[in-house]
Amino acid sequence: MEVNRLDFYIGLSLAVGSSAFIGSSFILKKKGLLRLASKGSMRAGQGGHAYLKEWLWWAGLISMGTGEAANFAAYAFAPATLVTPLGALSVLVSAVLSSYFLNERLNVHGKIGCLLCILGSTVMVIHAPQEEEVASLSAMAEKLRDSGFIVFAVCVVGSSLVLIFAVAPRFGQKNVLVYILICSVIGSLSVSCVKGLGIGIKELFAGTAVLKEPLFWSLVICLVICISVQINYLNKALDIFNTSIVTPIYYVFFTTSVMACSAILFKEWLRMNADGIVGTISGFLTIILGIFLLHAFKDITFSCDSLPLYLRKGSHGLQWGQQPYVALPNHDTQAQDELKLPREGNSKGGWGTHQIAP
Amino acid sequence: MEVNRLDFYIGLSLAVGSSAFIGSSFILKKKGLLRLASKGSMRAGQGGHAYLKEWLWWAGLISMGTGEAANFAAYAFAPATLVTPLGALSVLVSAVLSSYFLNERLNVHGKIGCLLCILGSTVMVIHAPQEEEVASLSAMAEKLRDSGFIVFAVCVVGSSLVLIFAVAPRFGQKNVLVYILICSVIGSLSVSCVKGLGIGIKELFAGTAVLKEPLFWSLVICLVICISVQINYLNKALDIFNTSIVTPIYYVFFTTSVMACSAILFKEWLRMNADGIVGTISGFLTIILGIFLLHAFKDITFSCDSLPLYLRKGSHGLQWGQQPYVALPNHDTQAQDELKLPREGNSKGGWGTHQIAP
Repeated sequence: MEVNRLDFYIGLSLAVGSSAFIGSSFILKKKGLLRLASKGSMRAGQGGHAYLKEWLWWAGLISMGTGEAANFAAYAFAPATLVTPLGALSVLVSAVLSSYFLNERLNVHGKIGCLLCILGSTVMVIHAPQEEEVASLSAMAEKLRDSGFIVFAVCVVGSSLVLIFAVAPRFGQKNVLVYILICSVIGSLSVSCVKGLGIGIKELFAGTAVLKEPLFWSLVICLVICISVQINYLNKALDIFNTSIVTPIYYVFFTTSVMACSAILFKEWLRMNADGIVGTISGFLTIILGIFLLHAFKDITFSCDSLPLYLRKGSHGLQWGQQPYVALPNHDTQAQDELKLPREGNSKGGWGTHQIAP
Repeated sequence: MEVNRLDFYIGLSLAVGSSAFIGSSFILKKKGLLRLASKGSMRAGQGGHAYLKEWLWWAGLISMGTGEAANFAAYAFAPATLVTPLGALSVLVSAVLSSYFLNERLNVHGKIGCLLCILGSTVMVIHAPQEEEVASLSAMAEKLRDSGFIVFAVCVVGSSLVLIFAVAPRFGQKNVLVYILICSVIGSLSVSCVKGLGIGIKELFAGTAVLKEPLFWSLVICLVICISVQINYLNKALDIFNTSIVTPIYYVFFTTSVMACSAILFKEWLRMNADGIVGTISGFLTIILGIFLLHAFKDITFSCDSLPLYLRKGSHGLQWGQQPYVALPNHDTQAQDELKLPREGNSKGGWGTHQIAP
């Protein structure tokens, strides 16, 4: 089955563009909030609504909306196994932009993490599975009726119900994984719905009467339910745990779960050669390590002295032995961290298809 | 021109095996020296020769020899652009083994660095350029007469002479790059010689009278000269600068220089598609970042407290805010670092084809 290369590149550009918009939206919103704070307005965290009058905040919201729309569209053109992992680029965009515009210093680990995200994404793009073309809603319906997918969907719904009603009440407040797992497994269904709807909308533009098909509306209803659940539990997770904890874990679980779902639904791995599979997995693991480095050492400032001497200017004549080092807490970053985004800023992960929190 | 896949896999196995032997050899030698030290013998660094009676030290030497031989053979079967970067695996083997057998703790950065070396190597192997088959010494002679290669070789020799006679006397003791640059550019010629000799020896086994060809002996002489220069300047670099500074820089420069030489000599990149080139470069950069992480933060112990809370056992209920951390110098490692390998242990980089120092 021939793959439409043009569609692939359109999807790829949409996915990258989406990450750029979503990454910048965090910066725009935060910049707006910082400006308000310097004016002495009541802070969003304290219930103020002054941010509604700040154009920077609105620019951030629009940028976020554009990004999510582009992300939605990307799924209609390129495989989910490509689009979802590229969400990592929004972390990178927001990290790089915040070091320029918010003077939040990116330490060595952050820089290495960014590079790794780029390298991993590049490798994934090269090897992206060339999904079986699902050109119409009826083709999609056939895939959804596949027994493998039905078993998967039942497992997802069943395990989510167990997590929501049995595990979450007891362990949700203590273990960061519970809420994130709920969001992630449900997220795989959201992406399937988005994929189907994207194809439906493409058909609509081509003149097919998809609005009369019950499948189209079933997908809409299913998407709304899934995304509501995701928003709810992602907000709970963000309320209790630190963003820098939730983000990398959510990225890993959500992406893995989407890739599993996509593999079962589209059986794209069956048509990949061993090189492609190994390459995709290597790229994904590289991105995970990058995200880990970006977040795990965020609050440690490695001053110049903590680097090996050869990275410092004017070093010479070093003898065998150890390097001196200084590791200091990054007080500037902490001060800025105290100025949190308002709660509604956290719902961005809840749009369901783009999983990255700032 | 069809590429012999079997040859490729033989070369790959030899390259990986070579790294395993070379990586373990450092551990065997150090273990032997530590055992001697505990017996109270005079230390190698102080001129003692008791290590000659320790079987572990000899095991290390034999392991090193086997590894270098396997590395030499690997060049006869697989492209240099594949074999050279895989040298990174010996760093990984020695890092992992020393945490088991020498109780040298590998910190988080070390572990991430190891993973990145593996991931980068995997990606490089997938995309390794499928070199034009050079099946005989006469084919090699033709390649060597190519004007592109002659220009490259003249540049290499010219710049080495400038570095050796003009730059090294003035800046060699101060700037770590000078000696390493000499070793690296000369190293690209060594690898070309090794490649030619490997093909010659393969022909010899097939019954061709290569020993009568002047090219064979020219390559031998050229190899001896190149390797002598490399041993000399690598030892100088290691005498003045710390191993953990020399190793990553040498890896990057040596590998880049070999890849440049191989590209000019075999024009392998011309036959690669864009994906292959991008993949190879991404893999190489991933390895470089891995090596950097393995070495740059070697002497900083990240205690458990320096990790984000979600990585610690029993963490729960964390509120928004910063993580506490403790970064302590790793005194154990420093103590062990003082027990240096005897100087002759440093000549291993000088074998010319396998560039990694411990």
